[in-house]
Amino acid sequence: MASERVEVRGHIIDSLILAKVLDVILDAGADYRMVDVEIGRTSADPSRAVIEVQAPDEELLDRLLTELLVHGANRVAQADAATVATDRDGVLPEGFYSTTNLPTQVRIHGRWVDVENPEMDCAVVVRPDGRVRTEPMHRVRAGDPVVVGRDGVRVQALERPRGANPFEFMTSEVSSEKPKDLLVAEVADRIRRAKSMGAKVLVVPGPAVVHTGASPHLARLVRAGWVDVLFAGNGFATHDIESNVVGTSLGVPLTGETPPEGGHANHLRVINEVRRRGSIAAAVSEGWLTGGTMFECVQRAVPFVLGGSVRDDGPLPDVLPNVVEAADAMRAQLPGVGVALMLASTLHAIATGNLLPAGVETFCVDINQAVVTKLADRGSHQALGIVTDVGLFLRTLADHLAP
Amino acid sequence: MASERVEVRGHIIDSLILAKVLDVILDAGADYRMVDVEIGRTSADPSRAVIEVQAPDEELLDRLLTELLVHGANRVAQADAATVATDRDGVLPEGFYSTTNLPTQVRIHGRWVDVENPEMDCAVVVRPDGRVRTEPMHRVRAGDPVVVGRDGVRVQALERPRGANPFEFMTSEVSSEKPKDLLVAEVADRIRRAKSMGAKVLVVPGPAVVHTGASPHLARLVRAGWVDVLFAGNGFATHDIESNVVGTSLGVPLTGETPPEGGHANHLRVINEVRRRGSIAAAVSEGWLTGGTMFECVQRAVPFVLGGSVRDDGPLPDVLPNVVEAADAMRAQLPGVGVALMLASTLHAIATGNLLPAGVETFCVDINQAVVTKLADRGSHQALGIVTDVGLFLRTLADHLAP
Amino acid sequence: MASERVEVRGHIIDSLILAKVLDVILDAGADYRMVDVEIGRTSADPSRAVIEVQAPDEELLDRLLTELLVHGANRVAQADAATVATDRDGVLPEGFYSTTNLPTQVRIHGRWVDVENPEMDCAVVVRPDGRVRTEPMHRVRAGDPVVVGRDGVRVQALERPRGANPFEFMTSEVSSEKPKDLLVAEVADRIRRAKSMGAKVLVVPGPAVVHTGASPHLARLVRAGWVDVLFAGNGFATHDIESNVVGTSLGVPLTGETPPEGGHANHLRVINEVRRRGSIAAAVSEGWLTGGTMFECVQRAVPFVLGGSVRDDGPLPDVLPNVVEAADAMRAQLPGVGVALMLASTLHAIATGNLLPAGVETFCVDINQAVVTKLADRGSHQALGIVTDVGLFLRTLADHLAP
Amino acid sequence: MASERVEVRGHIIDSLILAKVLDVILDAGADYRMVDVEIGRTSADPSRAVIEVQAPDEELLDRLLTELLVHGANRVAQADAATVATDRDGVLPEGFYSTTNLPTQVRIHGRWVDVENPEMDCAVVVRPDGRVRTEPMHRVRAGDPVVVGRDGVRVQALERPRGANPFEFMTSEVSSEKPKDLLVAEVADRIRRAKSMGAKVLVVPGPAVVHTGASPHLARLVRAGWVDVLFAGNGFATHDIESNVVGTSLGVPLTGETPPEGGHANHLRVINEVRRRGSIAAAVSEGWLTGGTMFECVQRAVPFVLGGSVRDDGPLPDVLPNVVEAADAMRAQLPGVGVALMLASTLHAIATGNLLPAGVETFCVDINQAVVTKLADRGSHQALGIVTDVGLFLRTLADHLAP
Repeated sequence: MASERVEVRGHIIDSLILAKVLDVILDAGADYRMVDVEIGRTSADPSRAVIEVQAPDEELLDRLLTELLVHGANRVAQADAATVATDRDGVLPEGFYSTTNLPTQVRIHGRWVDVENPEMDCAVVVRPDGRVRTEPMHRVRAGDPVVVGRDGVRVQALERPRGANPFEFMTSEVSSEKPKDLLVAEVADRIRRAKSMGAKVLVVPGPAVVHTGASPHLARLVRAGWVDVLFAGNGFATHDIESNVVGTSLGVPLTGETPPEGGHANHLRVINEVRRRGSIAAAVSEGWLTGGTMFECVQRAVPFVLGGSVRDDGPLPDVLPNVVEAADAMRAQLPGVGVALMLASTLHAIATGNLLPAGVETFCVDINQAVVTKLADRGSHQALGIVTDVGLFLRTLADHLAP
Repeated sequence: MASERVEVRGHIIDSLILAKVLDVILDAGADYRMVDVEIGRTSADPSRAVIEVQAPDEELLDRLLTELLVHGANRVAQADAATVATDRDGVLPEGFYSTTNLPTQVRIHGRWVDVENPEMDCAVVVRPDGRVRTEPMHRVRAGDPVVVGRDGVRVQALERPRGANPFEFMTSEVSSEKPKDLLVAEVADRIRRAKSMGAKVLVVPGPAVVHTGASPHLARLVRAGWVDVLFAGNGFATHDIESNVVGTSLGVPLTGETPPEGGHANHLRVINEVRRRGSIAAAVSEGWLTGGTMFECVQRAVPFVLGGSVRDDGPLPDVLPNVVEAADAMRAQLPGVGVALMLASTLHAIATGNLLPAGVETFCVDINQAVVTKLADRGSHQALGIVTDVGLFLRTLADHLAP
Repeated sequence: MASERVEVRGHIIDSLILAKVLDVILDAGADYRMVDVEIGRTSADPSRAVIEVQAPDEELLDRLLTELLVHGANRVAQADAATVATDRDGVLPEGFYSTTNLPTQVRIHGRWVDVENPEMDCAVVVRPDGRVRTEPMHRVRAGDPVVVGRDGVRVQALERPRGANPFEFMTSEVSSEKPKDLLVAEVADRIRRAKSMGAKVLVVPGPAVVHTGASPHLARLVRAGWVDVLFAGNGFATHDIESNVVGTSLGVPLTGETPPEGGHANHLRVINEVRRRGSIAAAVSEGWLTGGTMFECVQRAVPFVLGGSVRDDGPLPDVLPNVVEAADAMRAQLPGVGVALMLASTLHAIATGNLLPAGVETFCVDINQAVVTKLADRGSHQALGIVTDVGLFLRTLADHLAP
Repeated sequence: MASERVEVRGHIIDSLILAKVLDVILDAGADYRMVDVEIGRTSADPSRAVIEVQAPDEELLDRLLTELLVHGANRVAQADAATVATDRDGVLPEGFYSTTNLPTQVRIHGRWVDVENPEMDCAVVVRPDGRVRTEPMHRVRAGDPVVVGRDGVRVQALERPRGANPFEFMTSEVSSEKPKDLLVAEVADRIRRAKSMGAKVLVVPGPAVVHTGASPHLARLVRAGWVDVLFAGNGFATHDIESNVVGTSLGVPLTGETPPEGGHANHLRVINEVRRRGSIAAAVSEGWLTGGTMFECVQRAVPFVLGGSVRDDGPLPDVLPNVVEAADAMRAQLPGVGVALMLASTLHAIATGNLLPAGVETFCVDINQAVVTKLADRGSHQALGIVTDVGLFLRTLADHLAP
């Protein structure tokens, strides 16, 4: 066990500095103890916290302290900054201190000197005249004394501007640039955990699940018992049935082998045939529908609610055309739901988000970042967004859970 | 072999009607013979074409004629429309004619009668007074005579409005709602075909390939010999090396197992170490870099061009900081390229698109539809856009080509 | 009047070459006469057309012929290419021929010579050994003979690859990079024209119209008589009323002056108050609602249909909760509609698109390109997409029509 | 002055509850005093804060307390909940308590009773058997006792799940659904404030500024002295000059009046002419360039840096083809910059963001939300994103600053 005290100062509560620092510590697998906290009494008073960081070993502690520095958590015990002269133009010494774009000071001969020109991803060079400047890597010349390690460096965390502010801080937490295999594995894990604790899994798929060819993978998840409730609209159910009965989705063939079936009207014919039989369940029991997500729901008695919308063709006889009644039918299925998976659905995802208690873990998968943001705008702040292709996502998820 | 003559009339050239009709015929696996074509002499004169559609069997011909009707290609031989009385409220007879939103006529007792209210995805009902109307499925009542088949139905294709038109017709051909497994299989096939004909495969990856965890799959493709040239920037190469040396990308760990390495500065340290060694090839030969896409390129002597950009940190010693020289270096690698694969890259994809002859098959993969559109806006009209998650795309492609 | 004959060859129908060429001619304000057309009998036979281009003056004809060359329309009368020696490194002679990326030939001493390395946006240089190459501007050296004008240059239009092709050609016609003021002026013009011919204008606004502060501008259009029918959902109507009664939209104040009203529940209270009064019309006649789009609709007896959706709170008493009945109510308002304006609405825009005859001019305004594409995917091919901010769009449109 | 004490409990630091509560208080124009704060010593210990909320009047305090309740800040002084019986089916009594989706308790006869089914935007009804449930508005029946006001209601703020979490919380702060006129006014204000304090304004425009027709508005801002430094690339400068010399941008005419100039090669000719003259300044002094943003920069001696990129045609003689030197030239212009405005630029915006100290107020305007997010992903956390159409944005901004 290794430990070290760090200090943060300023508007550490409302600028989220303290929260971020604690996050970084716990995310790194370390822990903390609050040694001293003074919270400013008024909005003008600064606050201050001294935190003892406790890491399993020195190496992790070392890395962690470097990371914390980026967020303005400076070590309490401070020495002079160490410098190493570079031995070659354009190459920095190992262990060089890498800058942020925050106001920074370096301790030289016991005095804290301001870094003149904060710029991120640079080195810090001490000039012969005692001035301290950031330099991009390519500008460093052999012999330049470059700050190494993080001794004697302190950083001042940026405070959020106050005032009647119509802008909001930009945050980057819904991003398409995340390792996707990891995310899928984690979603699989959450579903497993929820099921093991007796919670129900709710799935809300949109028509794109079928258009992208992912319907068989969702069917696989239903068949293997991973789905307990399904909310969707006329579109998803129709295209799922169409893809299983005719092999197309909105008339587009879903496999290379299938001869083109023609038929922009396939979905209408499918709706008409189900209407003739009276319900999806009847279409299954008469042997007309023999596969797909809706089929598996019927077979496994997974309850589903199909809510109507003004854009519906038909609709299928199972669709509730009265939307107030549809929402009530959805409400009736919610008790016991622990995980909700919104899959490339806008309307039904938002409708479901409106109904869910805040504690339900919600994953919202869509290729369009704006949809994910929109769900959050409506108040479902517990939702976690995954910007990816729902077709490839579902295949990978089904491989995890129902190989 | 089954055949039938159809006719199109109007501004069939400039409204793209004829092109679309021929497309539909060939896409269906059928063929055609032009029987009679009269092209209007001036922009005001209408044109007219009689086409003999030749299909392998009656069933396909039948489906095809239905499809062609949607595009305004009407059968030359026409009889009265057939109607069947519905036997149940809200359910249509089998084989009902499914409407488009185009102006439509129905032949009754030898006379062509206008459908009063064109609306897509409806049935056509003949009223007792001889009027003909579209009706949505739910409004049809038992006993209503509904048009079935496509005898005696003709449709008038929509002509594009002319005039100094600042608008362009909206087209929907870049869509995220396509079956993705099929698309990936097809790309694999094109690559195989190009290689078998001796053509080279060019890959242009962006940093998101690494951030999404797909770098090992690209490395796999290089190792298996599927990549002949690589164009990228400082970002891709740095993060590829970072992910292999440190296990992170921009400091974010790429696998669940790896302990968090901390280190927003990892990419800078990686650049610095390569600069110290003088080149990526030196980093490989010294045993410092032992895996990843850039490693495989060095090992297999796959030429690469890393073009600089103003946002670069470092940069890596292999990066050409002079962009005019970088473009020239890219030009030197182009002869023989038959397929180009742009992977979540904006800057380098557009730069490459600017240089490629029109005949090079180009696939542009990005999660953001706007990027794909942007590439086309710059004149690379031969590019085919695939809106999907590059991480899951590359994994699937590598599974096809280098299992 | 100036004229010249050009020729196109190849699969000019199905590769859309002929259509594009005729488009370019008419868009330029010129006209054409078909001199000779031979359409290939089968899908394998090439076609050929000789077109006489007729322009009002020589200058326009000249520019037009240059433009046509880009699309593979070559002059019938051909001479040798003219070259001018550059007088300075890196600078081209005036009137240099600017390349496309298509296969190109240059006529020298009566013989057509292939350009070796097609690349767009380059010059064509004739080498001393008679070879002809593209060169980027920066590579041209003083004394190099550079092709000028378009005499003796011919270009071979790219043909679309055939085959069972799961890809679609990428087209760039929905783009956010268009001059927006022009587009708005044109929409205003279309609306004026439709009204002058007695056609009705249908508007389908989404809630973002209110969130972006554009509701007063829409209200202005209604008040000035430019809107004849309005389709929307509970969200638009509620937020429009909320913004007029409480000054917020979803609880967010819409003007800097208004004191923050608090109140995430404002929209619920507004719905509740309208429910208490029985209808929006009652809320107007009781003097409780005194402004906004819905108010103006009531005042001017503009019919509106509010279709329900499963995500609705409340809903307002005017909302039709049964979606099948809502769609029927929308159908009843369609006769006579000549222009439809979809404003940042997804659900109701698609629903409306499903119902409209193909001849209705439809403008779809949204900041999200995917929404615009989605509408087209559903079959509303007559829709014209404008990717822009609906708030700023409506303000400018209202300034045009109701200043 | 009115005041009241509220309390928050739990992981109020790392779940950002306390920060949010303080934000809400200050944003409302109220203030606070910390009465009692206990921060948990370890990551497992809960924290607790008692806050005295001080508002200018009772009405604001009242609204504010309601708002705070949503975030889990409950009044210290608590009484029983008040209920009012509804007088009509489906209509709630005035002042009804509107629910969140968080765990909620209601005090009845001195005892706190759990609300059984948390759902947002509902009313709370006390059942005859003493159970307390949320009910959507439409389900309430005449006579039901509905909770009104916020006495006797307490809400438990949601805590963020901990653990090695590959997901990040979704946040909705970059949204296209904000009142845009307000945002523009605020940006204008920030620029005025910065200038009045002697700070410099940096503008980084992309080519879309020209394509969307906004270049004259930017030129107006330069002419009026609002721009002190400009960073851009070859594309922006070329299209700006093209639009002024030829009246097109990438060959597309920018005004309705201008006759179509043809000319996909216009930008090449423009570059060539500037190369012939040696620099943009020379093109101005020779009278060849007489308007536009680059012209105004030359006229007013506003320094500009044009950084090269691999996709450049030409490039213009002022473009720095060596990107390392270009970045250094940008660095030299940064001292004194107080506001940075990124306008529909990706590459140069990110490059600039890399160089700016954290304290520079940065506004990033783009129609594409992903671009805005991308800038933040690169570490420019001080950037504020505005998702809108840059053309209409600049027109409005110029109307504010240079009418």
